[in-house]
Amino acid sequence: MVEASTLTAAQRVMARCDALADISETPGQLTRVYLSAEHLQANRLVGEWMTAAGMHSWTDSVGNVCGRYEGLDASAPALLLGSHLDSVRNAGRYDGPLGVLTAIEVVAHLHQNGIRLPMAVEVVGFADEEGTRFGITLLGSRGLTGTWPEGWLQRTDAQGISVASAMLNVGLDPLNILHARRAPNAFCAYLELHIEQGPCLQSANLPLGVVTAINGARRLNCRFTGQAGHAGTVPMGQRQDALTAAAEWTLAIESITTARGDNQVATVGHIEALPGAVNVIPGQVNLSLDVRGPQDERLNALLTELLEKGQAIATRRGLTFDAEQFYGINATACDADLQQRLSHSVTQLQGSPMLLPSGAGHDAIAIAECWPVGMLFVRCLDGISHHPKESVTVDDVAFATQAYINTVLSFAG
Amino acid sequence: MVEASTLTAAQRVMARCDALADISETPGQLTRVYLSAEHLQANRLVGEWMTAAGMHSWTDSVGNVCGRYEGLDASAPALLLGSHLDSVRNAGRYDGPLGVLTAIEVVAHLHQNGIRLPMAVEVVGFADEEGTRFGITLLGSRGLTGTWPEGWLQRTDAQGISVASAMLNVGLDPLNILHARRAPNAFCAYLELHIEQGPCLQSANLPLGVVTAINGARRLNCRFTGQAGHAGTVPMGQRQDALTAAAEWTLAIESITTARGDNQVATVGHIEALPGAVNVIPGQVNLSLDVRGPQDERLNALLTELLEKGQAIATRRGLTFDAEQFYGINATACDADLQQRLSHSVTQLQGSPMLLPSGAGHDAIAIAECWPVGMLFVRCLDGISHHPKESVTVDDVAFATQAYINTVLSFAG
Repeated sequence: MVEASTLTAAQRVMARCDALADISETPGQLTRVYLSAEHLQANRLVGEWMTAAGMHSWTDSVGNVCGRYEGLDASAPALLLGSHLDSVRNAGRYDGPLGVLTAIEVVAHLHQNGIRLPMAVEVVGFADEEGTRFGITLLGSRGLTGTWPEGWLQRTDAQGISVASAMLNVGLDPLNILHARRAPNAFCAYLELHIEQGPCLQSANLPLGVVTAINGARRLNCRFTGQAGHAGTVPMGQRQDALTAAAEWTLAIESITTARGDNQVATVGHIEALPGAVNVIPGQVNLSLDVRGPQDERLNALLTELLEKGQAIATRRGLTFDAEQFYGINATACDADLQQRLSHSVTQLQGSPMLLPSGAGHDAIAIAECWPVGMLFVRCLDGISHHPKESVTVDDVAFATQAYINTVLSFAG
Repeated sequence: MVEASTLTAAQRVMARCDALADISETPGQLTRVYLSAEHLQANRLVGEWMTAAGMHSWTDSVGNVCGRYEGLDASAPALLLGSHLDSVRNAGRYDGPLGVLTAIEVVAHLHQNGIRLPMAVEVVGFADEEGTRFGITLLGSRGLTGTWPEGWLQRTDAQGISVASAMLNVGLDPLNILHARRAPNAFCAYLELHIEQGPCLQSANLPLGVVTAINGARRLNCRFTGQAGHAGTVPMGQRQDALTAAAEWTLAIESITTARGDNQVATVGHIEALPGAVNVIPGQVNLSLDVRGPQDERLNALLTELLEKGQAIATRRGLTFDAEQFYGINATACDADLQQRLSHSVTQLQGSPMLLPSGAGHDAIAIAECWPVGMLFVRCLDGISHHPKESVTVDDVAFATQAYINTVLSFAG
């Protein structure tokens, strides 16, 4: 059951999402990027809300806004709750902020009810997850883990401003980035609430889902090379058409990935036929492949099968095929104990646990390198995200906040 | 058997192709467009060669260079031989000129041997077949048929110069274009020798082929519309991926067209997936379809089946499909009697007639509206044309010239 106070909390969360959505560099749209004036403004507001919820609040050395609500034992590893406050350009208002604001409501619940857990609860609003400004992602969460790769400070935005300069401009010292690093025993677990950004919960007619893993991903640039020719004079049987080969492979990618299941997905998002004229048989086709799945071994096996299929199609048709991976990230498994705690809370509320992988990336990817992570998904309309049409209902947010509170309360003893 | 004098003629043809290739607006490349200084220069040279071959020569009112070798009866409909002297940009040297220069050699043979046919033989070097300059094709041959559509004089080139202005610039009067029109009884037949521009003769290991028809063609812009989505979060079974639909259709186009046979071909030359990002499921795909075949009825039936298939694929996948034709030209049948005469000559020389349709367009399309047409194809290397690598051998040209001479001699009575 959702408590009356939780429904009120959910209404406050919705209003605060609206308030944060107004803090944007683009009038009429939501765009809030790392180390911008709007970033500072959002941090100030969220810091005030943290304080109002009973937390001590500060901004760390990479720009994350942090709050701490002490537990019975100040030296016990704390429970970390959070998500991010930055956005893509022309964004929706729930991707990120929803997870920060519900976490604040969890603490507010503890505070209002005079509950102290054995450990402290911390809430973090990560400064950069999307990577909108500098083209590098998870800067906020990698601040806590202390794993900023060398060179990040020199990365520049579209105006040529480096991360280091941008930090100085907002009063942060790039020499101090390691001060944001938290000790391995600082936290016992990380929980993140986030909109699903996909259609699975809506399809299942359920408000909440528990994430089993954040999908690993591989991205490749692929190419079929045949022989361009006159579209009128080369008989069907004498063609080395790179596009029909690419079409056969695209269809095989769909059927093989569907057949393998395991919550894996594969997408050809970009395709280009050369020379690209109506009356010329394509001699070359460049196309992208994006594969994702919750388990790296199975994902690698899928990718191997897809590439072997591409090669086989090319060989049978007298073409050449090649592919090179330009991006890869391993899957992040969610902690079994945290999944169980979340599932318990979710099942109590909606009767079914609804386990699903996350197709999109999250701060939990970085945090999982140091601490156990768990994620709670909230249904969003038609799976739309990164778009002004991103939408959640207050009822679903109330369900989510209640599940979040109950899960945190499971650490009471 | 190829006569010794024909081999000499073929060598002259090759040298003259080289000489014409030097008359270009682009140094190191061959580009010769309608109503250019190079057009006039080529016409003058070809006119001189016509005169040397025993013809009376003139330039008609649309810029075609013409020659006439009288027969026994000046009032009998003449035999018209020819092809075009204009080129695409960065062209090969045989597409067009080979047909004009071999025709001159046919007349030279008659002249040197004192042969007069019952009818005159005329040779024409058409001024524009490719449409390179003004984007409209067959201006030369449509001058003879008197079928320039209204508005052609106002069409402009890339510099904004109209056809009418360009004519005035080279001393032609746009008010006189109908003077080029020839009376219906001016000709009894039109023969055109041309490189194949395809790989069929090379595959058959034969130098010559007789054209049965010039393929009709239809060109369409087609579109699948689905739903864009996050490449990571939308499960395979919940996608409305416009690109996998387009891939299925592209593959069906290939298999259906191959299965129907009838010398038909179909090509998807252009494809574009939108939004076109690696990590986004394509919501829309625009693609072109080019279908060609020697018989309009069968071609229409093929196109109907292909469009029905596109619709069926879209419907099954929950997408929409639409297609609009933006270009169409009917097939041109070659005259049965002329095919037979050409086949007889070709079979005598190479033992086999080798009948094939033409996948590319030719001046014969326009001429066929008024007079019976026949075409003789010469093998070209790897089917390459519209490219500097366009290549024929002097031996094949000797075969072709001999077949051309023998065919024209069949009209002796």
